[in-house]
Amino acid sequence: MKTWNLRHYAAFLLDVDGVLVHDSRPIQGAADAVRLLQQLGQVLVVTNNSTRSRQQHASRLSTAGFDIHPDDIISSAYAAAKHLQLHHGGVCVWPIGEQGLADELLARGHTIATKPYQAQWVVAGMDRFITYQKLTDGLHALNAGARLIATNQDSTYPTPEGLVPGAGAIIGALRGMGFEPELTIGKPEPFTYDVALGLIKCKPDQVLMIGDRLETDILGGNRRGIATLLVQTGVSQRSDVERQGIFPTWIAESIASVHTEAVLPVSGH
Amino acid sequence: MKTWNLRHYAAFLLDVDGVLVHDSRPIQGAADAVRLLQQLGQVLVVTNNSTRSRQQHASRLSTAGFDIHPDDIISSAYAAAKHLQLHHGGVCVWPIGEQGLADELLARGHTIATKPYQAQWVVAGMDRFITYQKLTDGLHALNAGARLIATNQDSTYPTPEGLVPGAGAIIGALRGMGFEPELTIGKPEPFTYDVALGLIKCKPDQVLMIGDRLETDILGGNRRGIATLLVQTGVSQRSDVERQGIFPTWIAESIASVHTEAVLPVSGH
Repeated sequence: MKTWNLRHYAAFLLDVDGVLVHDSRPIQGAADAVRLLQQLGQVLVVTNNSTRSRQQHASRLSTAGFDIHPDDIISSAYAAAKHLQLHHGGVCVWPIGEQGLADELLARGHTIATKPYQAQWVVAGMDRFITYQKLTDGLHALNAGARLIATNQDSTYPTPEGLVPGAGAIIGALRGMGFEPELTIGKPEPFTYDVALGLIKCKPDQVLMIGDRLETDILGGNRRGIATLLVQTGVSQRSDVERQGIFPTWIAESIASVHTEAVLPVSGH
Repeated sequence: MKTWNLRHYAAFLLDVDGVLVHDSRPIQGAADAVRLLQQLGQVLVVTNNSTRSRQQHASRLSTAGFDIHPDDIISSAYAAAKHLQLHHGGVCVWPIGEQGLADELLARGHTIATKPYQAQWVVAGMDRFITYQKLTDGLHALNAGARLIATNQDSTYPTPEGLVPGAGAIIGALRGMGFEPELTIGKPEPFTYDVALGLIKCKPDQVLMIGDRLETDILGGNRRGIATLLVQTGVSQRSDVERQGIFPTWIAESIASVHTEAVLPVSGH
């Protein structure tokens, strides 16, 4: 049986919602745990939440007691903007999402189309202000030939008032009109992990992904050869592991457990 | 080669948008053609448009010069309400759609839930007033165990200003949150055609479906053993037939051609 040793890892990728915070409240012990991880190695935040800019993510985390620099935050909005920049230069985009998505696109040198038919790309993410007009504009952009990227396809998003529609609802609406994204950026897809590995200059086996959702955080880490720790302060619980057939390397109650021996290995077979 | 003979049919099923009207304007010659069909046999209107009640459909058609009784209108909203009534009695529904959908549900003895979690069924259709809150309410109803029916899954809806999102966008959003309809009511699915055949008490080979959309009107008629006439005043054109591999029995420029020899057979092979 493997023994937990935090010093085995040189870098840590942390999910936000359900790992560090519930809504805007810090999870008990999470701030201390993050400070410890920051002493031991590099810490990046990797989140599918595309509604905020990196600056807004950092501010929110700062208010909750975490000291994370905006440059160390990889959101699916940032990663989508980065992907377009790397592969297509500066492009003209029709975003379907919140202000944070537009901010990240602009920060990476892209322009926002003023009319749907002008757009080369539609970049779609979670949008709590979605309207029929926004769906219509998206349809017109896509019918006029724009290519489609999904920031992520999370079906739902947890809030203190219960689950609300995630980016998956928005992508589903576009799919229901006949358009399939040619690329999905966020976890569990490889692109976001590749951006993280590029930033920290580590090999996958030196890295630990800490997340609360099996089908995004853990599945994506497993696929990329990164060790994974499932914490049970968010969406997925131990009882979901066998049922979903997605096996983290390690499991613990909370990120607050990382400095203790309460982190246990999970065997897939 | 088959020869067109209108008197071969005892009943006619007519689509509305793209066959009888463009938006609220009658298509040239359509009103005369409908009067002729009404002299020769029974005429029912069969539409996937779930946003209006049968009464509203009849009023709109009356304004455009067509005399169709509300009882002779089979909308996907009416058919969905009818399906629930036939198979489940009066049920408690959370509709995602416009007022016409709620009206048809109420007219068939169902109740509208006041809170999402109370609903036994979610019935979803096109909704030009869709909001994030409506999607959230639908998610909560479905998470609480409500069963899901789609009035139809048309990807788009044609307007004078261009295509807008159809019911498919709404169903797609629900699918993107993890919920698949257990039944789709509208064309090309069989239920709506079965309701029509039940009302007119005709065998399928005595019936002609006249429509403008291959993948709904024509495909559904073909599947149900009903002769079909594709008119080219709406979505589909002759050039789409081979490409989509959906072959109407007959093809004409417009419904105004039905009394002439300008209706030609289409061979599938």
